[in-house]
Amino acid sequence: MAGVLAGDVSATAGMLRALDDDLPGARAALRALYPHGGRAFVVGVTGAPGVGKSTLVDGLVAAFRARGARVAVVAVDPSSPFSGGALLGDRVRMQRHATDPGVFIRSLATRGRLGGLSRSTIASVAVLDAAGFDVIFIETVGVGQAEIDVADAADVVVVVTAPGLGDEIQALKAGLLEIADVLVVNKADREGADRAAADLTAMLALGARPGPAIVRTAAATGAGLPELVAALITLRAIPEADRAARRRRQAARQIVALAAERARDAAHEAIGGGPAPAGPLASIVDDVAARKVDPWSAVEVLATGRA
Amino acid sequence: MAGVLAGDVSATAGMLRALDDDLPGARAALRALYPHGGRAFVVGVTGAPGVGKSTLVDGLVAAFRARGARVAVVAVDPSSPFSGGALLGDRVRMQRHATDPGVFIRSLATRGRLGGLSRSTIASVAVLDAAGFDVIFIETVGVGQAEIDVADAADVVVVVTAPGLGDEIQALKAGLLEIADVLVVNKADREGADRAAADLTAMLALGARPGPAIVRTAAATGAGLPELVAALITLRAIPEADRAARRRRQAARQIVALAAERARDAAHEAIGGGPAPAGPLASIVDDVAARKVDPWSAVEVLATGRA
Repeated sequence: MAGVLAGDVSATAGMLRALDDDLPGARAALRALYPHGGRAFVVGVTGAPGVGKSTLVDGLVAAFRARGARVAVVAVDPSSPFSGGALLGDRVRMQRHATDPGVFIRSLATRGRLGGLSRSTIASVAVLDAAGFDVIFIETVGVGQAEIDVADAADVVVVVTAPGLGDEIQALKAGLLEIADVLVVNKADREGADRAAADLTAMLALGARPGPAIVRTAAATGAGLPELVAALITLRAIPEADRAARRRRQAARQIVALAAERARDAAHEAIGGGPAPAGPLASIVDDVAARKVDPWSAVEVLATGRA
Repeated sequence: MAGVLAGDVSATAGMLRALDDDLPGARAALRALYPHGGRAFVVGVTGAPGVGKSTLVDGLVAAFRARGARVAVVAVDPSSPFSGGALLGDRVRMQRHATDPGVFIRSLATRGRLGGLSRSTIASVAVLDAAGFDVIFIETVGVGQAEIDVADAADVVVVVTAPGLGDEIQALKAGLLEIADVLVVNKADREGADRAAADLTAMLALGARPGPAIVRTAAATGAGLPELVAALITLRAIPEADRAARRRRQAARQIVALAAERARDAAHEAIGGGPAPAGPLASIVDDVAARKVDPWSAVEVLATGRA
């Protein structure tokens, strides 16, 4: 733990692996680290598949490195070059930062997981924060649950869109707009970028709250990145009262997410879905399967010990 | 409840609305209905955005109607014409079935929800099953958590792909392949369909378990739909021992998912994230926000009443 607090990269990596493997003492160490965090600027970057999130995060890492910040990336996007590089054959960008001790990249595998993504993200950010990283990016594909998870963990949420995606993908953006602090129209050098930006402005005009900033980028060439960095730095400098309100909202959402994960684990263990071949309440699964007991009553039994 | 069991469509719709609004007695009615279900054939249809899931489900509804089955659709895909029609301006296909009392369409809004999708899906299927629908389709966009949710609730999972999507979207399929009982290459009249089918066959050959059936369709023209219907009917006729094992696995996964939802609700209520301005344990949120208490310890306090 002292190594993590001193910012040692291999101690930090070891701590994250210990948490992944649920080694004895790892959770206690995580709890002990928690009070030492709270200084990092945590930036969520999310958007539909194909909008260029990973290239954008890569550019942001370089930009914040150039300003002298230590930067970490938690990549939970299954299509990210960070987490999904082997699949896509695209490890080039990751390698660009691989020899830089001021950049730490953490991939979270999401395939086939029953929940646990919020938990892993929250724990990873807590460790990297305590390890003194100045900026932590959480990169996640923004469809369904993930968009909510990133809002739980980040100080600022960047929602990335791009012109020329299909209507069906565009429709997915609606949920994302609600959590955006900054809206990026990436691939702004492509045809349709003007219309995409105009559409977003029109959608935002319908909303009740003050809209997020809109920034146009072309992550592949670096165009617009300085403006995006400036927007992020402006957002960081919010009044103390607003910051406290945001921290409280984050804390509440994290507690709720972690309570759900804890119950999931406990239920898994009790009914034998976990490593044990059969838990103490495994027979209730047979009763539900046979429709002798309904699943809601079964959950009451698990949670309270009585029907 | 008698109306639902008699298959009355407006009683069924009323019951689902009562559950949505959490009206008094709705949960008790749901529990009472549960033992009367278990006869429906529940088919999950999932896939990345843009593969044509909705058109395919529309074709499957028509095909099973033609065989005399009563058919329900639970549409949890935000881009579905069933749930997202207003957004996409595409209500044409929904209207095709709107006057048919043998088709029931249930849309689940997912925007901005903190969890609850599993719960709503499980409850909707339980009601429609008790109402005597012979086939229930669950249509969901297969990215992230949703792919797991659909496997919790369905007897058979159809994973839909299409040629010509971007690499990033294709990469999302990897998680989906693991839960597929039938793999559909839709838009099989498009360029690249042969290669898409060959790629899938190659990916499946790497897997340990016996691979799912691969069916090529062009949902827009109806090509391949008879073969898909035949594949589904074959899958339904599994040996009783296999069916029992599947029901048990479903029951276990549903219990775990519902236990997580219950804990989420309880935490929300205790810390005042819910309708109440402040719950009995609201001060613990302040302690976490101030980093005096870590969120894992806060969850222990919520779950057990002690630190």
